[in-house]
Amino acid sequence: FQSKLPHLGTSIFTEMSLMANQFQAINLSQGFPEFDTPAFLKSAIKQVIDEGKNQYCPSAGLPELLQQIGDLVQRCYIKDAARKLDALNTITVTSGATEALMVAIQTLVRPGDEVIVFDPAYDAYEPAVELAGGRCRHIAMNAPDYAIDWSLVKQAINDKTRAIVINSPHNPTGTLLGQSDLLALQQMVLEHELYVISDEVYEHMTFDGQAHESVLAYPELFQRSFVISSFGKTFHCTGWKLGYCVAPEALTTEFRKIHQYVTFCSFTPAQFAVASMLKNHPQHVDELSGFYQQKRDVLVAALADSRFKVLPSKGTYFLLLDYSAISDLDDVAFCHWLTQDIGVAAIPLSPFYQAEILEVYHQKHKVVRLCFAKNDATLLKAAEILCQL
Amino acid sequence: FQSKLPHLGTSIFTEMSLMANQFQAINLSQGFPEFDTPAFLKSAIKQVIDEGKNQYCPSAGLPELLQQIGDLVQRCYIKDAARKLDALNTITVTSGATEALMVAIQTLVRPGDEVIVFDPAYDAYEPAVELAGGRCRHIAMNAPDYAIDWSLVKQAINDKTRAIVINSPHNPTGTLLGQSDLLALQQMVLEHELYVISDEVYEHMTFDGQAHESVLAYPELFQRSFVISSFGKTFHCTGWKLGYCVAPEALTTEFRKIHQYVTFCSFTPAQFAVASMLKNHPQHVDELSGFYQQKRDVLVAALADSRFKVLPSKGTYFLLLDYSAISDLDDVAFCHWLTQDIGVAAIPLSPFYQAEILEVYHQKHKVVRLCFAKNDATLLKAAEILCQL
Ligand SMILES: CSCCC(=O)C(=O)O
Ligand SMILES: CSCCC(=O)C(=O)O
Repeated sequence: FQSKLPHLGTSIFTEMSLMANQFQAINLSQGFPEFDTPAFLKSAIKQVIDEGKNQYCPSAGLPELLQQIGDLVQRCYIKDAARKLDALNTITVTSGATEALMVAIQTLVRPGDEVIVFDPAYDAYEPAVELAGGRCRHIAMNAPDYAIDWSLVKQAINDKTRAIVINSPHNPTGTLLGQSDLLALQQMVLEHELYVISDEVYEHMTFDGQAHESVLAYPELFQRSFVISSFGKTFHCTGWKLGYCVAPEALTTEFRKIHQYVTFCSFTPAQFAVASMLKNHPQHVDELSGFYQQKRDVLVAALADSRFKVLPSKGTYFLLLDYSAISDLDDVAFCHWLTQDIGVAAIPLSPFYQAEILEVYHQKHKVVRLCFAKNDATLLKAAEILCQL
Repeated sequence: FQSKLPHLGTSIFTEMSLMANQFQAINLSQGFPEFDTPAFLKSAIKQVIDEGKNQYCPSAGLPELLQQIGDLVQRCYIKDAARKLDALNTITVTSGATEALMVAIQTLVRPGDEVIVFDPAYDAYEPAVELAGGRCRHIAMNAPDYAIDWSLVKQAINDKTRAIVINSPHNPTGTLLGQSDLLALQQMVLEHELYVISDEVYEHMTFDGQAHESVLAYPELFQRSFVISSFGKTFHCTGWKLGYCVAPEALTTEFRKIHQYVTFCSFTPAQFAVASMLKNHPQHVDELSGFYQQKRDVLVAALADSRFKVLPSKGTYFLLLDYSAISDLDDVAFCHWLTQDIGVAAIPLSPFYQAEILEVYHQKHKVVRLCFAKNDATLLKAAEILCQL
């Protein structure tokens, strides 16, 4: 059987989590929290299941949930009250951000189209583009600050360019796009009639007082964008697979056409429960940045005496470590060794890079990613082990 | 914005359920049960949520669930113990049969490929084929018995033919494929090196002592097949969106590559709970046919004095009614009238037909689909209304 995606294997997250379990390593690889989803949300979903709301909900999402997401988005990003988001026609609930990314890309990308992505790039973008018959154009983020050089983007845009994928707060680097980035993006998008897929799943996790810059706050940019987020990150329930996509009505219409044949709808009781959580505990999202900043600080402090160089994390629940003082191994081999022999699982960065970029760029860089969405005890134990290297 | 699927609108199931709610009609349109999922399954999922198993599970599915599905499939269809299914490498858990269909089609279909489907065909097949760059070749099932004429299939096969989609028990007609159908299919598939997507979501609902013929029971055919089913139908929880795909290991490898970027994994607590249900209540699936046969019989008996001609339903939870003695309206208009003015929502058959086939075939046929997965009282009330027409 000839593969349609011959270069693709099992995702690095699956691979490292399996290896972590096999070798009983502390798993700081795949991004998921060690702590549980809030008690209110658990009670809410159990009650919905008990009440027998276990059948299909509308394919676009439960109306109450669409409305709550609309209110959240409005409160966080659309300060201008005159710009009222029409939640029922611009938001679609999806089975995690993964489905939202796949559907947005399938909605946009036609055979021959090019999509600009920034390396290191989350691994789900490229297979979706390729299945749609398109091709990714990879642009390396700067070193060592992982900023985007917009002049490179300008050079890369051509007649085939259809879309640009951005991701802020950025996985795996923990960097943030600023206002100047979004304005540069907006200018290019409008000038060249491109579209944007904005992966904002870590939107509620930014540190040191820096706010998340959402595409939703830029009306003209939003007119050409799919903005994607996920409750799995926000409510510590990655296994619930509940995400959403916000897009202008015309784009949402097309997005929903495809969504209805990709999953039709997502787990109904979770939709009721998350709607109730958003309504009754609006402060949860506001407290999340503080919660994760403390986690970051615990891990960073505990690694102060290590031979790792800790890179700044301004958002997400990830932290990059430069291990060049410790090992000459490439990052995949280093992560295997770390998991199997040292007992701490991390994610290598090379799977986030296109081969060509990896060669010129990543060679020089010895960096791995840790997930700090863990109990303090776990972070301290992992750091203690890492400090011995 | 130029649509990639310009001919596609909102699914007929969404449209009719919305209309049913709007006009407070008895909703026998979209296929979902009125009764709740078994108490054991509800308790099980609530316990799993309480225990905090709310994070990602493996992308291929929870190993315990894969094993239970393997045991189920082995018991139901693979009588030959020497043919032991390797559950962990041939089964993938998906977010409903919808995701499984999309992923199987994306795995198989390349630009320019043709896929044979039989009309009336479930609405999810064609958009998936088109997104993959392929084209559906529609073959009409015979009238009035909705059998497949395999000589027409033989004529339709050409160099571009990649796959054949079958669906038994058949939605919307309630017909079953027999052994001779599967043998005819097997011969063509092997001779022309085609693949099969077998939609068997109603596998545990067959009536009058007739057994479901699964592709899994035909070893050579299975070697080239994706067999798809769904727990939503089997356990009365369509809103849980839990399905699966069984395929030979080489096909499963490719299927999983795509699945990991479509949804990554499905609702984790439901996977634990369904595994427990399958283990502790294996008789549930065996009792399902009897349960739904009784429902069918209630509805058929209650319609005996109506002016509808009731067509035979041998499986699924659907029943076709010929309304030609009652109205000259086309089936869409008839369903709108039935929902809005009469108070019973049904599904028209024309959305299951390609336009060309519809013209020559469906004109002569005035048929709508009712879902009888409802409480007896609901079925009797609907029938009473319908008997007045
Ligand atoms: C869907 S598994 C990957 C989870 C994640 O987003 C990450 O670890 O980066
Ligand atoms: C996914 S909504 C459609 C449900 C169904 O299978 C049907 O009504 O035929």
